Amino acid sequence: MSDFNDSALTCNDFLGGKVRLWQPKDGYRAGVDPVLLAASVPARSNQRVLELGCGAGQVLLCLGARVPDLDLTGVELQPDYAQLARRNGVENGIDLAVVHCDLAGLPEDLRQRQFDHVLANPPYYSRGAHSPSPDAGRATALGEQTPLADWIAVAAKRLAPQGMLHMIQRIDRLPEMLIACDGRLGSIEVLPLAARVGRAPELLILRARKSGRAAFRLHAPLILHKGARHEGDGDSYQPCIAAILRKGAALEWPGGR
Amino acid sequence: MSDFNDSALTCNDFLGGKVRLWQPKDGYRAGVDPVLLAASVPARSNQRVLELGCGAGQVLLCLGARVPDLDLTGVELQPDYAQLARRNGVENGIDLAVVHCDLAGLPEDLRQRQFDHVLANPPYYSRGAHSPSPDAGRATALGEQTPLADWIAVAAKRLAPQGMLHMIQRIDRLPEMLIACDGRLGSIEVLPLAARVGRAPELLILRARKSGRAAFRLHAPLILHKGARHEGDGDSYQPCIAAILRKGAALEWPGGR
Repeated sequence: MSDFNDSALTCNDFLGGKVRLWQPKDGYRAGVDPVLLAASVPARSNQRVLELGCGAGQVLLCLGARVPDLDLTGVELQPDYAQLARRNGVENGIDLAVVHCDLAGLPEDLRQRQFDHVLANPPYYSRGAHSPSPDAGRATALGEQTPLADWIAVAAKRLAPQGMLHMIQRIDRLPEMLIACDGRLGSIEVLPLAARVGRAPELLILRARKSGRAAFRLHAPLILHKGARHEGDGDSYQPCIAAILRKGAALEWPGGR
Repeated sequence: MSDFNDSALTCNDFLGGKVRLWQPKDGYRAGVDPVLLAASVPARSNQRVLELGCGAGQVLLCLGARVPDLDLTGVELQPDYAQLARRNGVENGIDLAVVHCDLAGLPEDLRQRQFDHVLANPPYYSRGAHSPSPDAGRATALGEQTPLADWIAVAAKRLAPQGMLHMIQRIDRLPEMLIACDGRLGSIEVLPLAARVGRAPELLILRARKSGRAAFRLHAPLILHKGARHEGDGDSYQPCIAAILRKGAALEWPGGR
């Protein structure tokens, strides 16, 4: 697939306009999940951050908009998305290094580096479990080619001691994630994300630490919407979620350690 | 340790008096958790049920009090607890076969059998992680000698096809449990148990099926107590929990499949 033409792109605001993102009209469309992932990372200025599968750059740019002076690197398999992430970095005035490669084959200079944070929002569905999207780029972004375990193994290798992985994923893949972390990452915390109170969580953010030894923690679900059901067309996000999505606030983890 | 003397025992009511349990004054004291475990099992009359580590028989007797005509077998490492479980079976009029053995060394006749349900409330702490109890029986019941993975491996071997494991355990041991289930049991569902709304769950009930292929599910936490904090000495259980503890009701799993 060649570079996107501008006519194939739309520009969308995130974090109340703090981030403006060019993305393909028909491809993978960034949503709420990458914003929550970026908000969940307790990065501090001057730390080194790597995102595996950065797409058009939404997670890194949202993180960079909240925390100044990060050293941000993304790797992206699809060359046109990698190019778009570079453009989005420039247009948002955020320094972003984007490497076009398969995460299973990082170039030598990346393999020499260690990072304080690794982030990933891997495809939510195993390839074959769902019908492929008619759009090839969207299909690659939504359906995995690389097993989820490989994402975690690569992340663990690139983390500095005490460095942290943050990953957002469907809840049904928690067992795979925990199995992949075993022996590689510790101090695992899982924050389930539920649409409404009392509903089963559909997504989770996994936090894990290189060389971490603390006990596993499952937090109470973070509830995204007010009320027990969808009512009308009004804004129904909980105030803390609205602050993340519209003002670029951080996601406060429960009972930090 | 020899058999308990009656003077070393107390008799306690469970399920509003439907079950009366003799248990050692100073040993492992049955609490709420085994009652919740028994309530969570969707056994039907005439099914075969095995409990690993049955102690004084609380789980099997609570299950037998709710579901008539079960074929109930318990294995128990400590001979005096095994003897007490037999006595509790007789005194409650519930037919209970109790085998005194290590779960890692089940006798041949048990190894020839398959069960529709396997239950377990394994020790909550790894041996060495906590100070041993001055009471040897209590120490054995609370601190494991057998790794949690072995409990799950033995359970999987003893389950008939489509048979179900139910296990209650501390939430921090979820990764170990999921790793041990991998390749042995599927259709895993985790029901977190939280003391109060918004609190991190401390316990979980794991349900898994032999030969199950359904996606992993994490349910919304089951909240035990009303209100955001402990207030006064009054009864603070949620109505559904009170119905389980005081009336022997079943625990309804969310969105059964």
